[in-house]
Amino acid sequence: MRNLTLLTDLYELTMGQGYFREKRHEQTAVFDIFFRPNKLITYSVAAGMEQAAEYLENLQFTEDDISYLRGLGLFEEDFLAYLKNLRFTGDVYAVREGEIVFPYEPILTVKAPMVQAQLVETALLTFVNHQTLIASKSSKIVAAAGGGVMEFGLRRAQGADAGVYGARAAVIGGCVSTSNVYAGKLFGIPVSGTMAHSWVMNFPSELEAFRAYARSFPDACLLLVDTYNTLKSGVPHAIEVFKELRAAGHEPKGIRLDSGDLAYLSKEARKMLDAAGFEDAIICASGDLDEYSIRSLKEQGAKIDSWGVGTKLITSADLPALGGVYKLAAVYENGVEIPKIKLSDTTEKITNPSFKEVYRIYDRATDKAIADYIVRAGETVDESKPLELYHPVERWKHITVTNFRARKLLSPLIEGGKRVAPKYSLAEISAYRAGEYARFWEEYTRQDMPHIYKVDLSEKLYELKRTMVQESGKGV
Amino acid sequence: MRNLTLLTDLYELTMGQGYFREKRHEQTAVFDIFFRPNKLITYSVAAGMEQAAEYLENLQFTEDDISYLRGLGLFEEDFLAYLKNLRFTGDVYAVREGEIVFPYEPILTVKAPMVQAQLVETALLTFVNHQTLIASKSSKIVAAAGGGVMEFGLRRAQGADAGVYGARAAVIGGCVSTSNVYAGKLFGIPVSGTMAHSWVMNFPSELEAFRAYARSFPDACLLLVDTYNTLKSGVPHAIEVFKELRAAGHEPKGIRLDSGDLAYLSKEARKMLDAAGFEDAIICASGDLDEYSIRSLKEQGAKIDSWGVGTKLITSADLPALGGVYKLAAVYENGVEIPKIKLSDTTEKITNPSFKEVYRIYDRATDKAIADYIVRAGETVDESKPLELYHPVERWKHITVTNFRARKLLSPLIEGGKRVAPKYSLAEISAYRAGEYARFWEEYTRQDMPHIYKVDLSEKLYELKRTMVQESGKGV
Repeated sequence: MRNLTLLTDLYELTMGQGYFREKRHEQTAVFDIFFRPNKLITYSVAAGMEQAAEYLENLQFTEDDISYLRGLGLFEEDFLAYLKNLRFTGDVYAVREGEIVFPYEPILTVKAPMVQAQLVETALLTFVNHQTLIASKSSKIVAAAGGGVMEFGLRRAQGADAGVYGARAAVIGGCVSTSNVYAGKLFGIPVSGTMAHSWVMNFPSELEAFRAYARSFPDACLLLVDTYNTLKSGVPHAIEVFKELRAAGHEPKGIRLDSGDLAYLSKEARKMLDAAGFEDAIICASGDLDEYSIRSLKEQGAKIDSWGVGTKLITSADLPALGGVYKLAAVYENGVEIPKIKLSDTTEKITNPSFKEVYRIYDRATDKAIADYIVRAGETVDESKPLELYHPVERWKHITVTNFRARKLLSPLIEGGKRVAPKYSLAEISAYRAGEYARFWEEYTRQDMPHIYKVDLSEKLYELKRTMVQESGKGV
Repeated sequence: MRNLTLLTDLYELTMGQGYFREKRHEQTAVFDIFFRPNKLITYSVAAGMEQAAEYLENLQFTEDDISYLRGLGLFEEDFLAYLKNLRFTGDVYAVREGEIVFPYEPILTVKAPMVQAQLVETALLTFVNHQTLIASKSSKIVAAAGGGVMEFGLRRAQGADAGVYGARAAVIGGCVSTSNVYAGKLFGIPVSGTMAHSWVMNFPSELEAFRAYARSFPDACLLLVDTYNTLKSGVPHAIEVFKELRAAGHEPKGIRLDSGDLAYLSKEARKMLDAAGFEDAIICASGDLDEYSIRSLKEQGAKIDSWGVGTKLITSADLPALGGVYKLAAVYENGVEIPKIKLSDTTEKITNPSFKEVYRIYDRATDKAIADYIVRAGETVDESKPLELYHPVERWKHITVTNFRARKLLSPLIEGGKRVAPKYSLAEISAYRAGEYARFWEEYTRQDMPHIYKVDLSEKLYELKRTMVQESGKGV
């Protein structure tokens, strides 16, 4: 395991020394991670909490780190001695990985002594922003494909971690496998892949290349058929080799198309395979795919069973950063909460103050989610009474719900520096995501012009926010 | 150091077993990494070769890796035993990090036994694609700013490596510092950063927050002035604290603007600072910057000395993947080179066959680069004679150059599995980039509608390519 304690922005450490000097370093602070909407974020799939927990449990500066910091000439010896003994001793509340989440609601909350809470900001954002981004992109691609999506992006990933943790996040979002062997080993993800064009080019003929592959993998024979001419050469040669395999008692897997008009080629290849008696041979497609091109191919009736998605998934190409932020919500003085608010001229950018909890409200009749409901910590929800939900800014927009159930989204991940949340396998996390995703009307999750899911505030939280904004002299 | 040997696509290993079974695994193969043009790639800044060399020198499967592969049920024991003893024993030729490079030309060439050359494809592409992408984006941003760019993107990076190696690449591209402490330590990059809005929010008043920071960092006091109201509160409070600092014998550093109209605010803040006698206090700006917004701010006369660039740099937001590829160029049979070509219906996608070298041709009169010139390995360039350069596809487009000097771009990075290239510091690499960048007319490197720099072929290479394409029956 790498020690990532130095994976932080310098200002977390300069502020740390400042707080230390002012004797505010042990003051308990509450920070929330949340993200803001943008045109491409309809919903997100939370991920990265596992890596966040691992990082926090292992937070510890090495002697070498301290020497490096000393060499910067910014830090004093008493603060460096303090850092040397620093461990993460706070609490972290987070949504489960795989949870469907929305803009403005806290998805991870840190309650810890100020220096610690500040120090961990950057790395927590890095892990949660990255994995949530890729899990969300994966979910959208998988929704378009209807399943059978393989993650193929390692070579285009922004470094090794982007490939490895990106593969993990892609599986949380619904991908069924990865080409990335390292990620396969680390997280137990099924791995997939057979051959590149270089294999075919390296034999005197395509047919010989296919036969050679079939000799090595008679029971996992999936052939790349577009090196020369897909329909005139690739598919006929594949069928020839498939017949030889079957005669020897093996069933072929199928073919892969990596270029050309995938709609046309897949339909023609399907006919050729079926006519030759290989109705069970699958057709995989790859090559610059994403949710838009997959949806278009399906609309054209493409006969594609399995989708290899690379660059646009592993980089979330149309939105390569989630933009999640980490904002101070409260500090404690003598055990009393002092809520904090970040003001802005842009009303949507004003933060929600105080230590909070988030409930998801489901309609008992349909088991579908109605809205999320942010409350001040300690507020309870009485399912036996009608519940009033308030728009975060516009108070005249409120709804009353009845016959609902309420579920807390945030639960303890770390308590007193120790991990307390259960560990789930990736398969469990992905299944959890699928189950929760099904509880949203597709009007909220569709690709085009989705309906905006409500993330509302309790009356108490709304009133606190309104009062704090008014006291600042700005008015809502 | 992490062992990244498994950081590969599964198909590299299935092909490996196939070659092993066919007794082609020790056949020497040549693969090139190059990238293709797109609307945003005018030139690129090569990077990632250092990480590639480190990876290759440390390539070795662990017992645990072999057990994992065995468990997949795809590989036979003789091949697993072969993998267990496998090391990288080949040669690698690469351009220097910081070299200005162009589409189609090899920037890294692997000449190695087939199984090795195939195995390392994915990781080499990951490292080179990622770092070249970010170094190139950085170079464009730095060109717009004219210097003084700080890399601030860790929290929005696609995982830890994207932040750490991205910071490295950003410095290769011309950034002067990073906020990322881990990268600072690992690569000796200057680190920068002072305070966040949470610092200001956490004190009873902005003035008290500024004073507290000044107490801790009297000689490195850079204050974030936009938490409440930049011109009515932030700048006046900063000036008040700067006067106190100066009275105590310290000179302040300056201020940072992170929101609002940076052009207007920076001009007004500059006037206020100057009027108060702080002409040397710098103004840093941050907040969703990139080469386009920086160029616009400068055109508006913004008084900004230093630029903190985050998300759009660390993710290369408008082009989040370089799309570099790794293509088979030749194999050797009994010591004789057999050139290989990848055909395509798209002429530009046809690869350049054979083991190659790349020369950069400079005009001796101006010391400016004229064109790059790809030749078959072993071809020499006689600077005393006129040189004919051919367009890679359209033979009627050719030029004759005289009074030139020719410099080889590729040089040995690894020989027989051992690193042979010198190691350069990041400062040396960045200085090298700056020196070479200056040898290109700005017509080639400008942001809008750049002139396309010529990457031509020698007559021998052109003829080989033409013959191979014709023999395939496709015709150029």
